[in-house]
Amino acid sequence: MEMWFSELHTSNVKISMRIEKQLFSGVSDCQRIDVLVSDEFGKILALDGEILFSEKDEFIYDEMVTHVPMSVHPNVKKVLIIGGGDGGVATALTQYKTIEQIDVVEPDEMFVEVCKEHFPELACGLEDERVNVYIQDALRFLRSKSDEYDLIINDATDPFGYTEGLFTKEFYGNCYKALKEDGIMVYQHGSPFYEEDKEECVKMHRKAYKAFPISRVYQAHIPTCPSGYWLFGFASKKYHPINNFKPAEWKKLGIKTRYYTTNLHKGAFMLPKYVEDMLEEEERD
Amino acid sequence: MEMWFSELHTSNVKISMRIEKQLFSGVSDCQRIDVLVSDEFGKILALDGEILFSEKDEFIYDEMVTHVPMSVHPNVKKVLIIGGGDGGVATALTQYKTIEQIDVVEPDEMFVEVCKEHFPELACGLEDERVNVYIQDALRFLRSKSDEYDLIINDATDPFGYTEGLFTKEFYGNCYKALKEDGIMVYQHGSPFYEEDKEECVKMHRKAYKAFPISRVYQAHIPTCPSGYWLFGFASKKYHPINNFKPAEWKKLGIKTRYYTTNLHKGAFMLPKYVEDMLEEEERD
Amino acid sequence: MEMWFSELHTSNVKISMRIEKQLFSGVSDCQRIDVLVSDEFGKILALDGEILFSEKDEFIYDEMVTHVPMSVHPNVKKVLIIGGGDGGVATALTQYKTIEQIDVVEPDEMFVEVCKEHFPELACGLEDERVNVYIQDALRFLRSKSDEYDLIINDATDPFGYTEGLFTKEFYGNCYKALKEDGIMVYQHGSPFYEEDKEECVKMHRKAYKAFPISRVYQAHIPTCPSGYWLFGFASKKYHPINNFKPAEWKKLGIKTRYYTTNLHKGAFMLPKYVEDMLEEEERD
Amino acid sequence: MEMWFSELHTSNVKISMRIEKQLFSGVSDCQRIDVLVSDEFGKILALDGEILFSEKDEFIYDEMVTHVPMSVHPNVKKVLIIGGGDGGVATALTQYKTIEQIDVVEPDEMFVEVCKEHFPELACGLEDERVNVYIQDALRFLRSKSDEYDLIINDATDPFGYTEGLFTKEFYGNCYKALKEDGIMVYQHGSPFYEEDKEECVKMHRKAYKAFPISRVYQAHIPTCPSGYWLFGFASKKYHPINNFKPAEWKKLGIKTRYYTTNLHKGAFMLPKYVEDMLEEEERD
Repeated sequence: MEMWFSELHTSNVKISMRIEKQLFSGVSDCQRIDVLVSDEFGKILALDGEILFSEKDEFIYDEMVTHVPMSVHPNVKKVLIIGGGDGGVATALTQYKTIEQIDVVEPDEMFVEVCKEHFPELACGLEDERVNVYIQDALRFLRSKSDEYDLIINDATDPFGYTEGLFTKEFYGNCYKALKEDGIMVYQHGSPFYEEDKEECVKMHRKAYKAFPISRVYQAHIPTCPSGYWLFGFASKKYHPINNFKPAEWKKLGIKTRYYTTNLHKGAFMLPKYVEDMLEEEERD
Repeated sequence: MEMWFSELHTSNVKISMRIEKQLFSGVSDCQRIDVLVSDEFGKILALDGEILFSEKDEFIYDEMVTHVPMSVHPNVKKVLIIGGGDGGVATALTQYKTIEQIDVVEPDEMFVEVCKEHFPELACGLEDERVNVYIQDALRFLRSKSDEYDLIINDATDPFGYTEGLFTKEFYGNCYKALKEDGIMVYQHGSPFYEEDKEECVKMHRKAYKAFPISRVYQAHIPTCPSGYWLFGFASKKYHPINNFKPAEWKKLGIKTRYYTTNLHKGAFMLPKYVEDMLEEEERD
Repeated sequence: MEMWFSELHTSNVKISMRIEKQLFSGVSDCQRIDVLVSDEFGKILALDGEILFSEKDEFIYDEMVTHVPMSVHPNVKKVLIIGGGDGGVATALTQYKTIEQIDVVEPDEMFVEVCKEHFPELACGLEDERVNVYIQDALRFLRSKSDEYDLIINDATDPFGYTEGLFTKEFYGNCYKALKEDGIMVYQHGSPFYEEDKEECVKMHRKAYKAFPISRVYQAHIPTCPSGYWLFGFASKKYHPINNFKPAEWKKLGIKTRYYTTNLHKGAFMLPKYVEDMLEEEERD
Repeated sequence: MEMWFSELHTSNVKISMRIEKQLFSGVSDCQRIDVLVSDEFGKILALDGEILFSEKDEFIYDEMVTHVPMSVHPNVKKVLIIGGGDGGVATALTQYKTIEQIDVVEPDEMFVEVCKEHFPELACGLEDERVNVYIQDALRFLRSKSDEYDLIINDATDPFGYTEGLFTKEFYGNCYKALKEDGIMVYQHGSPFYEEDKEECVKMHRKAYKAFPISRVYQAHIPTCPSGYWLFGFASKKYHPINNFKPAEWKKLGIKTRYYTTNLHKGAFMLPKYVEDMLEEEERD
């Protein structure tokens, strides 16, 4: 059937995928939520008409926000996931037995329920006894937290939608405060290729760069992202993502992956010249 | 205006770009050639309706097939470019003063002329006195060559079109023979993400893996490629792309780039687990 | 959301409509059935990816196959609807109190059920006590019928799908036989505008033209049909669609319409020159 | 090649046609002009990204604005065409030997030139010695005209673009004044099917209905128009389009057509109920 879902990456370029079926469509207090079955990417979850993840490529994202900081920080006990109501990141983290507590702060309850029903293999981690799901606004949640988390993963992606508050200066300050003195924060850095994304990407860097002593950007190739290319921010109070990287220890854990390797960990921080230039320009300002 | 050019990456996923204008359309002996102006990618050149390159992202490709082998092989004097009638690779190579001869073997004369007219900044290198353009079939050209080139860059991309002959076993054997005893060959490895591309990708690896003592795969993020992700093959008689890599010497040359850096050179060989698995499986067979 | 359903009218032209939601998708023994909600056409029903009808324009079709013969034949008591499991035509016919029996022969039970659930205002007529629904193959059903019906409405539309048998010579012969001596048959004649439809259209005419003494073609403008233009066949043993037309009597019935008027009835038989030529050419052969 | 031109009929429905080639693209003082070659409709001319006409279906339009009034008015000597720089209507009119003068008032000179080059079979009539082309604003041109024309054909189509002035009350008043006491005006009435078009359609009717004693609407099926359905206005000081219709005299002229027939002339005024209702509602106000 000629039914296609398109995502406009800019007003002049789009990716389109053939849709086999729609499994769910609903409007929560926060957003419109759709679950579609695509022929190429399997089930996809879209928020307000934008792809959040697809069955076929979400593993790349989840592995990259999880294993990169976990193979650097020597002793993660308590993790905060901002957004992440789909459970993908939480599920990936539950593979680490030394983690004692995982707090997921997600404002959209319907989103959590939809993911539990349609993406059980992602959401299953939310049932782990170490995981607490708070249906709550992340900014408010963070205000009362201080010196508490070893790792914060900001899983919220859309700087223009209802999650916009999560990208303000205040927010970064609150994250810093909520982290312990050797805490790490990983966040969405956006896609650097298209002109209109580039600007957002640079703004993102500015905030983290000023708030944390160590701030590095790393990359992954995620087909459903704009131009297929996505950047992550690694902001840290103490540990350097390469200098404090412990590949041998991570390998001992025997965690199965499909994208991440300890070799790729290093390569992920080796950025194209045009991305380096973009970030350095920002750092000089 | 709502005029869009689409490229089907599989029958179920496509990238589409808004087209402002068509600058050229013609049918050569080999193929249909179109030059379109897109709002997002600038001018694009399409062969038989498939994008060959775009103004906006061709630099990634040209830098990756050129600088990777040139920063490994210590003494490149004579280069053969198979395909490459657009001149992009030749132009990138002319930045190296030590190169004495660049042979471009391109079967499609109209293609060369169209690129000269519409992409002069790419094609200009073809005017360099060290460059010889042979309007000829590459297979035939290669048969008479033996122990002659330091570097062969196979710029031909489409394993299903008229260039199919360039992807046979015989062809790889002839390339091996045409190279000197320390020669390197760089070739298109394809995109590994979509199922239907994966198979081609693996076949490609098999041939080079069997023909050359050193055979490695490296990657780049190229937005107009299927899933935005492209692999290259590095097949070599003597030099290893990492062990024999000479970053300090390359930096001294002062060549300006927008994608390649000596740091990224290393990262480009650090592949995702799913790509590693795919290649290893093939190697075991 | 950028989710669009397209129907290719030829391989080079298509109509696309934005889809809000999918209400149903299933595969019956006969075909794939989808119910989609479009922003412009309301709910649409698609069979094997082709639009059968939409909420917004199905009234045109139903009125034109019903009221045209009903305002010509003076005494319709028994009607056979071939296909028509959606109930639209049956429902329109139930407005005529003098009709005593309406037989609907539809091979696809799931189709009937889906329409009852999602298009109750169309399907409601199937509950009328005069209506009998036979889940059965129309060809087989017809074989045993002779001199029985005043009116046959062939609601089956797709000459290439599972309904193909309904467009054979044998089928037209059986319809003729099943009709009383003053019976009328109305059928889909197709769209005459695009080259590839034209041929089908002409073939259709040939069969009816040879089987019935009176054979005329009439038209309606239906936006979701190819080129927005649709032809119907009026094949009759005795009554002529214009000469035996009884507008005054029909008006007395007080039937509410949105497309049909007694004036439009006449206009519907006044065809463009290119359609006249196409039909005449066929008649001469 | 997957290059498609789309016209959005509303924000939720579009027609798309495969494009083979672009023959011209330019920006005049008035608008952007494109000539595209489509596989299904032949050459198409688009103004600001909207189809004005296509080789395949423009004959319908030209015949319907020309032959309808010409077969009603007994003695047309002097005609004014507003817009119409493509020459299609002028060319159709030159078939009438009794016409002495045809004035074409077209503001866009580039448009005329482009049509002469790419649509010579349409534009050829502009070379007829009875035809005068005024590159001028129609409103201004009309102000000085009084009691001069037997027939005015308003060929300008877009009520939202630069031709908007042609749809004001003042404009209709000026047309009335420019016509002789038995003059006829034919104009674009728009497409009545989609909600957003309907309103425009009704506004159009109001103006002509109030300005002329006789005002009737007629229809044609034009595939590239919104929903494939187009209405024309027939506004007249004296002659009624049906009561004063002279089919026998028109037939004697031996004019060749592909859409218009004297039979279809009558049918064209037999409108669907929903269109009648829409117009009557307006007339009652």
